Amino acid sequence: MDAPIAQALNLAWVLVAAFLVMFMQAGFALVETGFTRAKNAVNTMAMNVVIYPLGVLGFWLVGYGLMFGGLRGWPSLGAALADHHELGFTLAGHRFGVLGWAKFALVEATHDPTSLAMFLFGVVFMDTAATIPTGAMAERWKFASFLLYGAFMSTLLYPLYGNWVWGGGWLATLGVEFGIGHGVVDFAGSSVVHMTGGITALAGAIALGPRTGKFRRDGTIGVMPGHNLPMALLGTLILAFGWFGFNAGSTLAATDARVAEIAVNTLLSSASAAITSLFFVWRRHRRPDVAMASNGLLGGLVSITAGCAFVTPAAAVLIGVIAGAIVVLTVHQLDTRLRIDDPVGAIAVHAACGTWGMLAVGIFADGSYGEGWNGVQGPVSGLLGGDPSQLLAQVIAVVVNAVVVFGIATLFFRATDRIIGNRVPLEVESVGLDTLEMGSDAYPNV
Amino acid sequence: MDAPIAQALNLAWVLVAAFLVMFMQAGFALVETGFTRAKNAVNTMAMNVVIYPLGVLGFWLVGYGLMFGGLRGWPSLGAALADHHELGFTLAGHRFGVLGWAKFALVEATHDPTSLAMFLFGVVFMDTAATIPTGAMAERWKFASFLLYGAFMSTLLYPLYGNWVWGGGWLATLGVEFGIGHGVVDFAGSSVVHMTGGITALAGAIALGPRTGKFRRDGTIGVMPGHNLPMALLGTLILAFGWFGFNAGSTLAATDARVAEIAVNTLLSSASAAITSLFFVWRRHRRPDVAMASNGLLGGLVSITAGCAFVTPAAAVLIGVIAGAIVVLTVHQLDTRLRIDDPVGAIAVHAACGTWGMLAVGIFADGSYGEGWNGVQGPVSGLLGGDPSQLLAQVIAVVVNAVVVFGIATLFFRATDRIIGNRVPLEVESVGLDTLEMGSDAYPNV
Amino acid sequence: MDAPIAQALNLAWVLVAAFLVMFMQAGFALVETGFTRAKNAVNTMAMNVVIYPLGVLGFWLVGYGLMFGGLRGWPSLGAALADHHELGFTLAGHRFGVLGWAKFALVEATHDPTSLAMFLFGVVFMDTAATIPTGAMAERWKFASFLLYGAFMSTLLYPLYGNWVWGGGWLATLGVEFGIGHGVVDFAGSSVVHMTGGITALAGAIALGPRTGKFRRDGTIGVMPGHNLPMALLGTLILAFGWFGFNAGSTLAATDARVAEIAVNTLLSSASAAITSLFFVWRRHRRPDVAMASNGLLGGLVSITAGCAFVTPAAAVLIGVIAGAIVVLTVHQLDTRLRIDDPVGAIAVHAACGTWGMLAVGIFADGSYGEGWNGVQGPVSGLLGGDPSQLLAQVIAVVVNAVVVFGIATLFFRATDRIIGNRVPLEVESVGLDTLEMGSDAYPNV
Repeated sequence: MDAPIAQALNLAWVLVAAFLVMFMQAGFALVETGFTRAKNAVNTMAMNVVIYPLGVLGFWLVGYGLMFGGLRGWPSLGAALADHHELGFTLAGHRFGVLGWAKFALVEATHDPTSLAMFLFGVVFMDTAATIPTGAMAERWKFASFLLYGAFMSTLLYPLYGNWVWGGGWLATLGVEFGIGHGVVDFAGSSVVHMTGGITALAGAIALGPRTGKFRRDGTIGVMPGHNLPMALLGTLILAFGWFGFNAGSTLAATDARVAEIAVNTLLSSASAAITSLFFVWRRHRRPDVAMASNGLLGGLVSITAGCAFVTPAAAVLIGVIAGAIVVLTVHQLDTRLRIDDPVGAIAVHAACGTWGMLAVGIFADGSYGEGWNGVQGPVSGLLGGDPSQLLAQVIAVVVNAVVVFGIATLFFRATDRIIGNRVPLEVESVGLDTLEMGSDAYPNV
Repeated sequence: MDAPIAQALNLAWVLVAAFLVMFMQAGFALVETGFTRAKNAVNTMAMNVVIYPLGVLGFWLVGYGLMFGGLRGWPSLGAALADHHELGFTLAGHRFGVLGWAKFALVEATHDPTSLAMFLFGVVFMDTAATIPTGAMAERWKFASFLLYGAFMSTLLYPLYGNWVWGGGWLATLGVEFGIGHGVVDFAGSSVVHMTGGITALAGAIALGPRTGKFRRDGTIGVMPGHNLPMALLGTLILAFGWFGFNAGSTLAATDARVAEIAVNTLLSSASAAITSLFFVWRRHRRPDVAMASNGLLGGLVSITAGCAFVTPAAAVLIGVIAGAIVVLTVHQLDTRLRIDDPVGAIAVHAACGTWGMLAVGIFADGSYGEGWNGVQGPVSGLLGGDPSQLLAQVIAVVVNAVVVFGIATLFFRATDRIIGNRVPLEVESVGLDTLEMGSDAYPNV
Repeated sequence: MDAPIAQALNLAWVLVAAFLVMFMQAGFALVETGFTRAKNAVNTMAMNVVIYPLGVLGFWLVGYGLMFGGLRGWPSLGAALADHHELGFTLAGHRFGVLGWAKFALVEATHDPTSLAMFLFGVVFMDTAATIPTGAMAERWKFASFLLYGAFMSTLLYPLYGNWVWGGGWLATLGVEFGIGHGVVDFAGSSVVHMTGGITALAGAIALGPRTGKFRRDGTIGVMPGHNLPMALLGTLILAFGWFGFNAGSTLAATDARVAEIAVNTLLSSASAAITSLFFVWRRHRRPDVAMASNGLLGGLVSITAGCAFVTPAAAVLIGVIAGAIVVLTVHQLDTRLRIDDPVGAIAVHAACGTWGMLAVGIFADGSYGEGWNGVQGPVSGLLGGDPSQLLAQVIAVVVNAVVVFGIATLFFRATDRIIGNRVPLEVESVGLDTLEMGSDAYPNV
């Protein structure tokens, strides 16, 4: 059962990358738990440990079929043996793909390496998106409501926008159908994964409201430091490690020599963002805030995710610098202006930097890469490379993501609030979710 | 010194997989330490850190030669240049291989990539088996006795059954010699690694007896919660990460396109098992017990390990569902009926689910894979695939493993108890092994 | 944009190895933070988290160009498309390469996979060297001074000696120019990475002086146990995991079948060193000191790093045994004789064992490998293989590294001490750097 050697190499590449992305779940668990309080540590950790198997089952049953059911295969991995079908409609002579409709529960895809490898790679990306809101909504979310969310995210919300960009849907074909750039270009998921997760986190944080004591009546902001900063920092390093799989794996091919530049760009953007956040806050507060540097590092990773294959290393550094500033400013704005309580900074890192990452492709793509990627014809250039229409495509993507994801997520949270309630009672919140909601404490006998 | 490209790819695959399996040692360390008490954290962690180098030396000197010394090579990695020899006997015209006898201390295998790659892959699997009992026997095991155990496990006990199934021994050739299925089929070690570790853990937990205060005279059970649940959950995620290397690496070939399905089945079984355990306990105790969900996840991994290459994704989900129930029920039975004290649930996860995983191959193998694997001729089918004799082979394997490993381990623990004693004095147990046995506390100045 | 298949495989190998090496940063962070006190946990962790992005930027801007700018390419990865230039001089007819001078900020190397892959692999090695002193200098180092150090190390100090050995500089060509062995042979960096880091750590620890209370006026030594031993042990396992990438990745080729032996030697040396340290201390203090075993394990890794490709597995075991003793004795000497305060044992592990590792190549290299590596002609033999001149080359390397790195580092620390001061005020040290220097505590609400 030997595959041709190039395909075998690419399959191995995608699998190893998927393993690394899966390991990011540990990074998220540590970042979110470290940045929240000890009395909710089991709950926060549990949401991270449970979203993974829960989302896997949802994506297996439904999500994968909706997101990727329309694709016949991936050139570097071979044609899928299973059926493929994309739902959509035609308007004024233009085809709009909306949702895939095949391979549910992998039934037709059994024993098909191409479909199965893409399921594995797809499901860990879904998991990344799905775990983002558990940070922003931590310390006050009812566990049963979280479970409903996990099922919804993995089966419907994530696959929807995902299909539009990566599954052959209408945002991917904006270039072919309307001549808008090369369609929406999101190499590894600044919008598909991080905006979707981050915008859902925003909707969820608004739906839940702030933690009791965060925004006081006298206008001051309650300081609620996380309980274990080293834990959060370890999580950041794990995320940075796994992110190499996230971005470099997204070539779906080790035979694509661009993998080296993708990895380097990923590294450089994270580095410049971390250092920017560090010095930005240092100038303001005269302290080296390593928690903010850590979120800056993550923001740099999110921001280069869409463009890592399309920009130069120098541009990656610049994208990171801006990301580092965005993280600090967004955290500040959420706290002081918008009064939205995000205990871990997930909205700043994933929604804001995801948006920036998408726009950055439209600005910095230098026309040296893209032929054949996601059905793209010819290399991708952004504004500075002479193609302003690519920036338009990217703007469309972020507007669509923000509106659609925010809208659907808000409707969903309203519905669950009616049915079972989203927020734990005040008593549970003040005693801690671990004792009253989870039934076990994180550190019972230290 | 360039290898042909396919062989080079397979070598790289096996090495990367071995690295991932080695990293599981960190997962075990965290799970076991998190689920035990702070006063024994250094001791529990130390057993995990020390079993690794200790076992490596034992397997290098003796174990590898006994387990794999009888094999000439592995097709995907090439023929071994070193000598090979399998001890055995012939009875009524049937050949019974019992132990390898070559490559001790790798002397003849120096500079032979095939033998060395298999040593690396073999030694980390041994390490996984050897570290399992340190969980079940934690909080009361004398460190010197543990060291003797480590030497024994890596040199003799693990290689013995291992040779029978993977080293060309008599269980592997049950098919060829007696027409019982395709011989014992254990793709990545539900029995070779997990039952061997789990059954030894059972023998050891019985030999040591329960922790003082666990089973009270009035029949009630003392609650002894672990000291750091987030630590244990992090360990679970690390194990799930490394397990991809464990199972998908066991093709010994990236050129075997089955790797994708193996990885997917591994994921699906762990997911359905985790969710099953979660809801099972939730229904019973009306709390989402994330520690049990985490053990369920591990049980799902153990259960799919034997069959991951031979069953469909849908069967993997079903295998996981049953594994999730087995974990919960076994933990319950050990506590309430058998009154065997296993602080971390290692017996339920590894012995019980390892048994189930072996049987599951005999039930669900669908006849689509197997030709050439471990000397097998033709694809492997189980009961549902029309070959009931395969289930018989699997039953033989679990009975042999249970009887032989339990018997030898029990004899060994009796012997060490006479020589140096297995259990720490009561005073050490109540003060904590860290202070009195290890000479340093885990958290001295927090 | 498909690379020929062998080159694609090698590129993937180097990238995956680089990812693993990057993950070692998490290991260092945990080892150093676990072995230091809770009041300085944020500071210690922060130095580890910040050295990474800081060093990346420094190496990108300057360091990579100085270290590798003189090389045209790497055979297994292809020729670099970018310019190359090595600064140097000719003395008495012999060419002395001193520093590379090309590819600064990767400008000329944009879109060149070979240069970019080597940048990635190079930068994570630099990061390893740069993070070593943060352990030895922990608990008393001013954060601003640390930042200056990070910039200096990544741009100048590390690349200098690095160029001499790996960049085509004069130590690499000692064989060709003077017939001294095959030039300095340091396969994966016992000297380039570990001695450079360890010797800088020594200079830094001397420059800072001991922590207050460590060496008392009455001659006794203050015991200052770290705050979280399990954290440190987890870090050790992560380092052991990443080290496989460090050593096996240094072939720069998966097509080099030596990768298997390299990984096995790495494992064996770490194992024998850990067990040696464990029993050595046990005999002395009658306690199994797992912290020392853990440092022994790391010392074994450092010691085999130079020679992993050149020695037999049996020699690797022996190298590890000696490394295990060296770690214990060096820690003891630093404490009792030299009265140099190294909170985590970094000098013993990296400087002392790095030295031993370099010498070990000159003793144990068995003439079975080396042709083509780093421009070497013919296989490398050491003293026991019949070439005493190789040992001379190795002696030259360790003397040069010790003198040059110690000298430059000392001058640097003197300069920074004048400009901004290296050491925090006594009050900051006694309250803890977290509260007063970093502005946040590690565990604020447990």
